[in-house]
Amino acid sequence: MAFEELIPILEAIEAEIGLHLKARTSLTKEVSEYILKSGGKKLRPLLFVLSARLCGVDDGEEIRLSPIFEYLHVATLLHDDVIDGAHLRRGKPAANVIWGNTIPILVGDFLLASALELAASSGNLKMVQILSETTSCLAQGEIHEITRNNTLDLSEEEYYEIITGKTAVLIAAATRLGAVLANADEEKEMALKEYGLRLGTAFQIVDDVLDYIGSEKELGKPVGHDLLEGKVTLPLIYALKESIDKERKQIKKYFSRRQKEDIAAIVSFVKEKKGTEQALAKAKDLIHQAKEVLLAFPDRPAKKFLLDIADFVVERRH
Amino acid sequence: MAFEELIPILEAIEAEIGLHLKARTSLTKEVSEYILKSGGKKLRPLLFVLSARLCGVDDGEEIRLSPIFEYLHVATLLHDDVIDGAHLRRGKPAANVIWGNTIPILVGDFLLASALELAASSGNLKMVQILSETTSCLAQGEIHEITRNNTLDLSEEEYYEIITGKTAVLIAAATRLGAVLANADEEKEMALKEYGLRLGTAFQIVDDVLDYIGSEKELGKPVGHDLLEGKVTLPLIYALKESIDKERKQIKKYFSRRQKEDIAAIVSFVKEKKGTEQALAKAKDLIHQAKEVLLAFPDRPAKKFLLDIADFVVERRH
Repeated sequence: MAFEELIPILEAIEAEIGLHLKARTSLTKEVSEYILKSGGKKLRPLLFVLSARLCGVDDGEEIRLSPIFEYLHVATLLHDDVIDGAHLRRGKPAANVIWGNTIPILVGDFLLASALELAASSGNLKMVQILSETTSCLAQGEIHEITRNNTLDLSEEEYYEIITGKTAVLIAAATRLGAVLANADEEKEMALKEYGLRLGTAFQIVDDVLDYIGSEKELGKPVGHDLLEGKVTLPLIYALKESIDKERKQIKKYFSRRQKEDIAAIVSFVKEKKGTEQALAKAKDLIHQAKEVLLAFPDRPAKKFLLDIADFVVERRH
Repeated sequence: MAFEELIPILEAIEAEIGLHLKARTSLTKEVSEYILKSGGKKLRPLLFVLSARLCGVDDGEEIRLSPIFEYLHVATLLHDDVIDGAHLRRGKPAANVIWGNTIPILVGDFLLASALELAASSGNLKMVQILSETTSCLAQGEIHEITRNNTLDLSEEEYYEIITGKTAVLIAAATRLGAVLANADEEKEMALKEYGLRLGTAFQIVDDVLDYIGSEKELGKPVGHDLLEGKVTLPLIYALKESIDKERKQIKKYFSRRQKEDIAAIVSFVKEKKGTEQALAKAKDLIHQAKEVLLAFPDRPAKKFLLDIADFVVERRH
């Protein structure tokens, strides 16, 4: 994909991020900037901008509001990292490693509030409504995941429920709200929401696959990290479907122990059973569906970009 | 004060709390209810209802929206208790004691989002704007407090800044938004904000005084608890002002050690220097100012209640 063409948009988004944060203490500013400027793909603001442009908004308001989605995203990252006791985030020490747990919890709250403050500044009440619902979903998606942690018997259906709640709803909010900003008709709004939901689900599946086949250097965290935390994801769900009782018992033993060699054994098992390949195929299928949704839209540069981003999501290595 | 007359309003508020929470998992519901139904004065929703009625709203919308302020309040309590590693909240085990840190962080996020969702359902954008700003202030007030923890050299001015941010802004939002709901004029809106700021500041000062002179049974937590956590509050600030160098050195030693007997020694010192009495006098002065602000409003039952609540704030023992 010709990502060069996206660079000016990404630069405009980057320039806007942090600009209107009303951080009163230097520590709030410091921690916010640490997490906001720590790399990251700025995928969610980008999807919002492109969706708005696809629906005809191009007056700069789509750029001005785009940080909403990065603030909300990094707020959840800060809280997740505290919860997981994470060591690394994007290859750098996690905020909780530097500042302890307290400050990242509160800066997460600050960024969450800042996202809704920026949304309210649009004067668009529907935007605020959808965002507050989304925030509620994100928290509940995380809770759902945690309550199903450390157990192997996660169904494919429940896995989708979890990743929709914790990941896809925010991506879908970004694409849907592009249409809302443009006052697009209900049909377009729902189409962009659908695109976002499928893209977001595929995105999380690929994330979960990379946890098995990625390299530590590219991921910024060790392979098998989800497993170590007791998270069962689609590659393992598929692999278990392909296995006989005896194998399942063995995996159960590894999973309950989860020493370094157990993790390595589960990773090998999943690859051998082609769990990662099947999960990737599922992601590709979702991406295909996401792209189909876009066919109804007129040909604009934004449409081409959104199609390309869909392809990128399953091709990425980090 | 004749609180009996407030009982129907408080019952209407209680009945509304939790009603529209869109909790999808049973755990989210369980933890939300645990903290929402754990007693508490429901002061913030009550202030919102009375402020709205003072400005002429009496169609039930003020009751429907009142849980906003309890959701936001308990969201901050959940996060605070995780941060402080609290054992007790309102005399019962803190949520983090029962569910660990993870779930209260996420349920706090859920309640925060729910508050803004409910606010957005009012269709009143200004309400959402003020609430998201308030949420941002609350997080920053906490951060400010934490960065000034464990140090004795806190000025009276900085103390007010901290308690305004962490407590008074939410109480002021509740009273101000009563006027906003009623589409009251700017003058009334600002008057109710002023009333809330002064009341909220007095409320926190009394809280801080009770940490010195209350009983563990009434407070639901041990005396000197703030000190133990390294928090310097107004009674100690005043006591230090009244002391000579030698005494200050001694207090500094106690404060840096903070064993049980050190805490007891600081508590005695503060009482002896009349730090608690001076702080209470300051609170009473603020309450006097808060009540004066209300004089401009027409005589309605709500006005009488708001005046009575102001008196209650400095008379309460828990």
